[in-house]
Amino acid sequence: MSTTTTTRDETAILAVLQEHADAIRARDAERTIAAFDRTVVRYDLAPPLAQVNGTVEEDAAGLRAWFATFDGPVQITHRDPTVVADGDVAFVHTLTSMTATPTGTTESFTLWFRSTYGLRRLDGAWAVVHQHESVPFHMDGSFAAAVGLTP
Amino acid sequence: MSTTTTTRDETAILAVLQEHADAIRARDAERTIAAFDRTVVRYDLAPPLAQVNGTVEEDAAGLRAWFATFDGPVQITHRDPTVVADGDVAFVHTLTSMTATPTGTTESFTLWFRSTYGLRRLDGAWAVVHQHESVPFHMDGSFAAAVGLTP
Repeated sequence: MSTTTTTRDETAILAVLQEHADAIRARDAERTIAAFDRTVVRYDLAPPLAQVNGTVEEDAAGLRAWFATFDGPVQITHRDPTVVADGDVAFVHTLTSMTATPTGTTESFTLWFRSTYGLRRLDGAWAVVHQHESVPFHMDGSFAAAVGLTP
Repeated sequence: MSTTTTTRDETAILAVLQEHADAIRARDAERTIAAFDRTVVRYDLAPPLAQVNGTVEEDAAGLRAWFATFDGPVQITHRDPTVVADGDVAFVHTLTSMTATPTGTTESFTLWFRSTYGLRRLDGAWAVVHQHESVPFHMDGSFAAAVGLTP
């Protein structure tokens, strides 16, 4: 695991995540889907426990419905991601912020959550095959999602 | 990435996760901590967003306080974990169940959550350097953690 290789891989891996964030910001459903591998196993902020990938058309329709709940761009920012790569496998963990304005309101909100990505190098290019996004929950008996945390 | 190597790595990686589960089941705080690398970056079920590792003594005290909230064993079971490994880096994702009986009650509960682990091979042995555990939350305005989901 030479430093040069790691740095080059790190740059390529972060570019994949940035392309995904840029696609979401542009509210482009097909581009968002194309940013990750079609076999991606996703543990999302919303139920179920694990997403079942549909066709591109089905998944794009779901994303468009989600984009429609916001006015203007949906901004995703990763804070100091840690990239660990060797050979053809890598993972990334980072805290992530999402800032958006719900449709029909003028006030934006920012949600901080945890993100972990698993990647493989497929045909020479890094591909996200696993995504895990979450907030913790309060164990005070309320079982309330901790949506107000900041790093 | 030969099949033989992957299979040997997979077995070794799953043994690390099993040792961690066995240590929790045995309610052994020091053994639980020793199962993962001391640099592990943890995104836990409970706040904060990311855990800050203390000394072994501090972390063991925290674990013992958590074990004390349950009567009898705390059983952690990973369901069909997917292991992706190459060179000296690996990640694992799986749905996980935890079954335990709250202290002072006779009724056990089972909680299903999502687990992702990031590993490095350090000095020839696989070590968990990242753990991400979560449940999703309901996006119906309640912001309630989805603690009742099953695979």
